[in-house]
Amino acid sequence: MKARIIVTLKRGVLDPQGKAVRGALSNLGFNQVKNVRVGKVIDVDLNGVEDEAQARALIEDMCRKLLANPVIEDFSYTLEDE
Amino acid sequence: MKARIIVTLKRGVLDPQGKAVRGALSNLGFNQVKNVRVGKVIDVDLNGVEDEAQARALIEDMCRKLLANPVIEDFSYTLEDE
Repeated sequence: MKARIIVTLKRGVLDPQGKAVRGALSNLGFNQVKNVRVGKVIDVDLNGVEDEAQARALIEDMCRKLLANPVIEDFSYTLEDE
Repeated sequence: MKARIIVTLKRGVLDPQGKAVRGALSNLGFNQVKNVRVGKVIDVDLNGVEDEAQARALIEDMCRKLLANPVIEDFSYTLEDE
């Protein structure tokens, strides 16, 4: 089973990288861009996990223990059968 | 209109960050993890763009000019009305 995890900064947390990207887009003439936030996407291949409930439990555990910082980040994920 | 852009490394491009995450997960006891790839997610708020075709053209232009490196990265995106 495969999982795609999206880790984004919580609302209200400053995002200097997003601000820099917004500035660069603006310099390139993309004046329609109001706001930019940058996060991470983590694609995980799970071996020998066929059960969706088990996969969900594993992914959430990984996010809490390593992949996301719960103080400043939120995570969401989607699962996909191979 | 809002867009969520996902930028991932192309197949075959080495991903040391993904390898490091995989090692760290393995050290934490997540032995089911076979492979990890890390990419970027970029959330863009577009101002005054109501037409979907126009939004698609803009986002693809941004990706080609700044957000993704076409030599080693692929991008995909989803649009969402506000």
